[in-house]
Amino acid sequence: MSQARIIDGKAFAAQLREQVAAEVARLKAEHDLTPGLAVVLVGEDPASQVYVRSKGEQTLAAGMHSETHRLPAETSQAELLSLVERLNDDPAIHGVLVQFPVPDHMSQAAIVAAISPDKDVDGLTVTNAGRLASGLPALTACTPAGCMVLLRDVVGDLRGKRAVVVGRSNLMGKPMAQLLLAADCTVTIAHSRTQDLAAVCREADILVAAVGRPQMVKGDWIKPGATVIDVGINRIPKEDGKTRLVGDVDFEAAKGVAGAITPVPGGVGPMTIAMLLANTVSAAKRLNGIAG
Amino acid sequence: MSQARIIDGKAFAAQLREQVAAEVARLKAEHDLTPGLAVVLVGEDPASQVYVRSKGEQTLAAGMHSETHRLPAETSQAELLSLVERLNDDPAIHGVLVQFPVPDHMSQAAIVAAISPDKDVDGLTVTNAGRLASGLPALTACTPAGCMVLLRDVVGDLRGKRAVVVGRSNLMGKPMAQLLLAADCTVTIAHSRTQDLAAVCREADILVAAVGRPQMVKGDWIKPGATVIDVGINRIPKEDGKTRLVGDVDFEAAKGVAGAITPVPGGVGPMTIAMLLANTVSAAKRLNGIAG
Repeated sequence: MSQARIIDGKAFAAQLREQVAAEVARLKAEHDLTPGLAVVLVGEDPASQVYVRSKGEQTLAAGMHSETHRLPAETSQAELLSLVERLNDDPAIHGVLVQFPVPDHMSQAAIVAAISPDKDVDGLTVTNAGRLASGLPALTACTPAGCMVLLRDVVGDLRGKRAVVVGRSNLMGKPMAQLLLAADCTVTIAHSRTQDLAAVCREADILVAAVGRPQMVKGDWIKPGATVIDVGINRIPKEDGKTRLVGDVDFEAAKGVAGAITPVPGGVGPMTIAMLLANTVSAAKRLNGIAG
Repeated sequence: MSQARIIDGKAFAAQLREQVAAEVARLKAEHDLTPGLAVVLVGEDPASQVYVRSKGEQTLAAGMHSETHRLPAETSQAELLSLVERLNDDPAIHGVLVQFPVPDHMSQAAIVAAISPDKDVDGLTVTNAGRLASGLPALTACTPAGCMVLLRDVVGDLRGKRAVVVGRSNLMGKPMAQLLLAADCTVTIAHSRTQDLAAVCREADILVAAVGRPQMVKGDWIKPGATVIDVGINRIPKEDGKTRLVGDVDFEAAKGVAGAITPVPGGVGPMTIAMLLANTVSAAKRLNGIAG
């Protein structure tokens, strides 16, 4: 049985970060513009601390301006919103990201609604969802945008390909479907109510799994030769009492059937922060009327 | 061969208009609120004149306030936009509709962007597209919303049904897909780039054709027993030199295969204005903080 190509997300992400760094250098030299990203973290969630630190480090490494605002867990929503407003108005900042989850006394929807759509580098606002759905230029959620970068390289011409997206979250499944549709794929969105999900998945030339259920997609759900993008990151127990990360796809079984597949970790994951940097550069250019 | 149930859109529309009229009567009696719809027509397009007159008549017949603003073809875009702004601010108006097409010297996108999302009863603004895509309450384009009313009645429980939407316009295909997804269908969006469209259509328990190509969907593209919603309205020549209206589906062939099908005319068409009235009532209630 032939083995699938393993898509090296780390290498793609490194390449994308290099492109971003080169573009940042050009913007500095030609336009005296340094793209800036502000990340806001409320509280002490350990996973969020790790993400926020990585985002800050990678932003700096790309030659960009980075700000991290760490607020105590007991910060009021009004205080957070006024910080967001200040960042919306700050000409040195082109991307504003509030790390979720926020403490329970805050409304995620209210926070998202406060972010300027022009600086919404996570692509979460209603305005960017509407622009994406309407075929207008939009800031698009980083993970689906990163998946598209991988797919364009691995698959090449996406036109007319059958794509199946499993999962329909606002952050991942829905924008992923919009991006695949804009790339002229025939797109199916499947979800928890889908009947005979295995058969639906087997139709896919491109299968994107984004449900958050460990190893749910089995090897025989995959059309031979298909490209499989595994967005899931699930922690499961190992025999030795420790844990390990797995995706939404049964990787060992799938790699004997698929034509190409992203591993977990090291597949989609590394692309997300790289796309965040790319989105911030796009936002900086748009806010300053610089084409391309 | 058994014959499909012919879905009587006229009867459904009449029923919906009655429900709207009853709700209007209640809003007047209990809240002293008369929902109002303003329709703006620029120029003398004959088909638009007919549509606009029908809209005005049906609005009045439902007991609502109706305004029709007829502007000469040479009206400047600035004049049109200032009328839209005036209507946005008018508390007697809850729905603002600019009849398209507008003359060539005007930008449809600029006009749509000027309409208050709260009064956007055609569901065209980026805000309403984004709200729909994000699963938030939205004013939704009248034709797909009308199709959903028919489907809920004819099919009943839509959960888990496979729906295929042929066509991906912002006005029809894309919102239709969003509405079917929100109703828990497994949704596929097909279009001009789709390969083996016939086979994709044959997967559908619910097939929605919205491409504007006369009788493109053949009888053998339809899964036996499927529900077929034909959104197309195409004028084709008859042998006697006159013309007749046909849909995007080959109706004569399809009705021997489908379980239920909308005719053209008399299927989806009549639902559109009825949904416009329903959207205006929804907008009036939301603008006045009235629940339900």
